[in-house]
Parts: sequence; structure tokens; C-alpha cells
Amino acid sequence: MNPVLVEAWRGDAVESFHRGAVAVVDGDGALVAALGDIERPVFPRSAVKLLQALPLVESGAADRFGLTDEELALACASHGGEPTHTRTAAAVLAKAGLDHAVLECGVHWPYHEASAHAMVADGARPSTLHNNCSGKHAGFVCLGCLLADGSDRRGFLAGYAQPGHAVMREVSAALQATTGCDLSRVPRGTDGCSIPTYAFPLRQLAHGFARVATGVGLGPGRAAAAARLRRAMASSPFMVAGSGRFDTRVMQALGERVCCKVGAEGVYCAALPEAGLGVALKIDDGNTARACEVAMAALIEAWVPLGDDAERSLLAGLSNLTLRNWRGLEVGRLSAHDALRRLGPGANRARA
Amino acid sequence: MNPVLVEAWRGDAVESFHRGAVAVVDGDGALVAALGDIERPVFPRSAVKLLQALPLVESGAADRFGLTDEELALACASHGGEPTHTRTAAAVLAKAGLDHAVLECGVHWPYHEASAHAMVADGARPSTLHNNCSGKHAGFVCLGCLLADGSDRRGFLAGYAQPGHAVMREVSAALQATTGCDLSRVPRGTDGCSIPTYAFPLRQLAHGFARVATGVGLGPGRAAAAARLRRAMASSPFMVAGSGRFDTRVMQALGERVCCKVGAEGVYCAALPEAGLGVALKIDDGNTARACEVAMAALIEAWVPLGDDAERSLLAGLSNLTLRNWRGLEVGRLSAHDALRRLGPGANRARA
Repeated sequence: MNPVLVEAWRGDAVESFHRGAVAVVDGDGALVAALGDIERPVFPRSAVKLLQALPLVESGAADRFGLTDEELALACASHGGEPTHTRTAAAVLAKAGLDHAVLECGVHWPYHEASAHAMVADGARPSTLHNNCSGKHAGFVCLGCLLADGSDRRGFLAGYAQPGHAVMREVSAALQATTGCDLSRVPRGTDGCSIPTYAFPLRQLAHGFARVATGVGLGPGRAAAAARLRRAMASSPFMVAGSGRFDTRVMQALGERVCCKVGAEGVYCAALPEAGLGVALKIDDGNTARACEVAMAALIEAWVPLGDDAERSLLAGLSNLTLRNWRGLEVGRLSAHDALRRLGPGANRARA
Repeated sequence: MNPVLVEAWRGDAVESFHRGAVAVVDGDGALVAALGDIERPVFPRSAVKLLQALPLVESGAADRFGLTDEELALACASHGGEPTHTRTAAAVLAKAGLDHAVLECGVHWPYHEASAHAMVADGARPSTLHNNCSGKHAGFVCLGCLLADGSDRRGFLAGYAQPGHAVMREVSAALQATTGCDLSRVPRGTDGCSIPTYAFPLRQLAHGFARVATGVGLGPGRAAAAARLRRAMASSPFMVAGSGRFDTRVMQALGERVCCKVGAEGVYCAALPEAGLGVALKIDDGNTARACEVAMAALIEAWVPLGDDAERSLLAGLSNLTLRNWRGLEVGRLSAHDALRRLGPGANRARA
């Protein structure tokens, strides 16, 4: 039975609560801290987009097509479908001589409400570019164009989201190598954007991100690719999520000190390069909209030395979030459980 | 520790799961069946709108202003802000000589996406009429106009959503009488629409709905009001929620046999008149979007004798819901735990 990680308060009473598990692991794979069951396999969903983008860089495809940091950050993103995001995804595809018709991620309205409304007002309809995974898929397309090696690109790419396709085999190999999990022995499902998603124990997910943080155990090419993607996300945090979003705000404030990425169904992964750690958490009930962000904020408070009042205030607001109703009245708060903060070395608590 | 009520499957693995508690109570207050902790106070939020609408009918305000069944159903609704809903809320206010400016529920875009997009395309902005609680608030306004008793209506109504206002005192008295809870001794919070919400044990909430189902213990005037509101919801289920929504679909199919109403943060209440029972459930993590609907579908399957294949097929689909991704591929399902079905007398399982 996993412990409560986040409580939703209304007035002076706990209205709802979220259980879950957390693993903090170092580059050698040693477990540094944990709460709950970290051996149960969980689907990381979009939280491992950085790992899935490693072959794009390692293969040389990113350089072949001249991808910028913004474009690499978008390859690791769950973006809001704002105009900058969709333009950038289209630019990546154009560098490979293709367009959005090649993407196999499916279509949805932009998650960013104002962008969706602006499209509606213009009479526009969403395309695959607006899918929050379009940057990741554009990266897969670039990788596929390299692998096609002169053969017909469109023909080669057909079905690239299927587990047996050469592109997905490269992506799966990177997931297997970084996490140390044998993917033939773990549950496999189909993700929201139609690629395979594999279920990993949180311990292994955290180890994968500790390797991203440190390069330990990755080999020089993969370690360099991981560092390049981390830095791309840190230098273009807007590309990773969008206006007002958690990952964007945190990386705008903390830069390379935190590389964090949310995934559907309440998963969060982060690389903490200064501490040389990887973090992975899963909210049992799959709540992504609020619980896993509040929990991740508390873990960042616990593990990342925060530099100034602005940083401390940002994280304190994210780990103990005020809830307002439709009239703007304060009605409660979302609050990370102290157990999360107690996991850390205590540097920030002592200073606070 | 509450048991798992709903599982979210991806492929062949459980991705996320929802714990919670359920109480099934008869008109005399006897506990007929339960799972989990039914004594912990939970905020029922919008699940008790029928109870909150009792004073509107009992006081004579509904008759004074000539409210129709559609309008009474809307007073018990969390509607999608579709044009029919907002027109009906405006009509109720017009019968009291007022308009939407008097409503204290706050403003949000229609929950019904197509209606929101149609407004955006027209350059329209939402008003308090689009708030999912506008029908309930319009009912409060009618009650307030009756209580104003000839004095200035607008002046009397100002602050009607506050706990100490005469309107809210009537509403609280109805909640107290139907549930048997002393509201001065339970936690109080502010709801999304700014009225007070009180935390009740599920056992008491279920008892309140058993009284609605049977009239037992309500006295003739309140029992008649409860039956009138139940029948209004059954005869106008579109008003209670809207296109494609659970409450609407279930009551369209089952009519007066089920009077069910969802509330925010994973609460569901229902009156089952044929069985003479009330049902209340809370998902621990507050998931309303999926978990409590799936759980309620299984409880209806367990407790309501279903008449034909169409009814059985509707409920089977709602209690074991197929999940599809953005390309329409089947990726998993939401499934009520067998423990919920085992709670019931077993009639439907035996027939299936």
C-alpha cells in the first residue's frame, strides 16, 4: 500500500488524497531514497521522451538535419499546441523534406485553451502538428529518414509508430539500455500517440534519469546525447510544455539544475545533474493534472539547493498550491505530504 | 484503507487504480451494503443538488414562479452550458423578474466543448448562465424572491450564497434534515460555485438519498418535493447534465428507476426508488472524470433490475469502458472492480 503523497484540502478538511511511490537513484544505480512500492512496473508514458529522443541525437540524425536546441527540446516535449510549438514541429519536418501528413500521432485540439480558441475563431481545424507529441514524432521522422538511407522516405516511414519498425526498435533499445530493463519481459501497451509504451519499475526509471544526469554507464556517445538533450530543454523550456505549465516554469527558473518531464497517468521523471540523481514518481490513481506536479515540486525542494527567494517562493507555491473557485475565492489548497520533503537531505528545510 | 473500486487498464496491465468507499442504505437508515470507510466525512459537492433544491419546491417558490419539470431538473443539474441549458436558466430568472447579473456562481466556459467552440466562433463570452451550477443558483434566486416577501428582491438576494443568508439557511436545514447530520458539527468548505459545502459521512448521504427514494422520515411536504424533483430529473435528463454525459444517458435509459447525480472530487449519490435505497460513493483521489462514473455504473448493475439487452449493454459499457487514443485505437479500459458488483443482490449477474 503506497503512502499518501499529496492532499487536496477544502477549507480545514482533507477532501481528496493521492497515494503513490517515489524512487531517487544515483548514477551507479544505488537507491538513495524511496517511498512506496518502487518495483511495480508503471508505464512512464511521456515522462521518458528524453530517453526516446536519444537515438535522434546519437544516430547523427539531429546533426544531419541541422536541428536546433529549440527543435531538440520540442522532441522531448508534451507541448500545448501554441503557434510556436506547431511552427517548430513543422520546421523539423520541413528539414527532412516532409510535412505533418507523415505523423502517426493522431490529432487533438491544442491543450493551451487560448490557442485552441484562436483557431476556432479563425475557423481552423487541428492537425497532427497540434498533438502534444508532434515534436517527438517529428524527431522519430528525422531518425527514420536517416535509417532509410537513400530509399523512399515515405515508404520507409509508414508504420514507424509500430513496435517492430526500425525507428521504434532504436527507441526501445535506448529505453532498455538506459533503464537496464529487458523490454521483452515487461508489460507493453499502446500510448496516446500510438507508439509502444513499456512498464518499468520506478527504481529503473530513476536509474535511467540518473544516467542522463551523470552520463555514468551510458558510453560516451549516448552520454553526450543525453547532456545535449538536457541542455536543449534547459535552454528552451517553453518548447517542453508551454505558457504557464509546470515543466516550463521550473526549468525557466532553475535552468540546467532540473530536467523534469511529466507523463500521462501521474508519472514524473527528472534528472538532477548537480546532485547526480534521477527521480521517478507515480501517482497510483493516474492524476497528472495536479498530484504529480505538486509531488515533484516538493522533491525538487528537497533535493535541489535553491538559490534565492524567487526560486524558493516559486517551488513553495507549486508544492502547496492555492485553489480558487470560479469567482476567484480561495477555497483550499493542494499540498505535498511532508514525507516527500523528509526524503531529501534537508538542506532547504534547514535554511528556510 | 479503502479498497480499489476502479482499475484503468492499458493493454494487459493495470496502469492506475482508484480506491474509495460506498454506502447503500435503506429508508430506515439501515446499512444494506458497504465497502471501505463510510464514516469519514466527505464533501458531496454537486451530488446533493436535489437535496439543495428541496426548499425551492417545499416553500412554494417553484409553484409561485410556475417552474416546469425542465426547470426543476436544471435546478438539480451540473449542466454542460449547452444553449438549451443556458436558455432555461435565463427563463427561470425571467420568471422571477431578474437576469443572470444576480447569480453569484461565477463564470466559466461551457463544459460542452462544441458549445464553447460555437461561442468562440461567434465572438461570444461566457456569463454566469454558462456556469454548470446556474440552474441551481436560479432556483436559489426564486427561493430568495419568495423569502424576500415584498421587500426589494435584489437587495434581499445580495450575498445569497453566503452560509448566513436566509436562502442558504433554508438549504442547509434541508441538508441537515434529510441526512440526519448536525451541520454545526461537520467540516464546512466553499464550493466551486461559492455556496457552502458540508462534509457528511457516506452513510448519512446514502440515507438522505434513501429518504428521497422512499419518502420515509421526510414528512409529507418534503417527501412530495423529493418525489417531484426525482420525477423532474427522470423526465428531463438532458437538463441534468447534457450531450453524451453519464447522468443524462443513464436516466434517459432507466427513467425513474435511477435518480443519480455526480459531484466534483469523485462523489456520486443516487436514489433507487424501486429498491427503496440510497447510494453514496466517494473516490479517495477525487477523480470525477472517470472513476466515480464507472463505479456508479457497476452499482446500478448490481442493484437495479435491468429490463432488456439495451439497458444491460449500456450499463456494461459504462462499467467496463473502452479507452481509445487520439487515432481511435483501443488502448485499454476502465473497469469497475468485482467487489462493487458483489455488493448487490446478484440478480443481474445471475441473469447475465
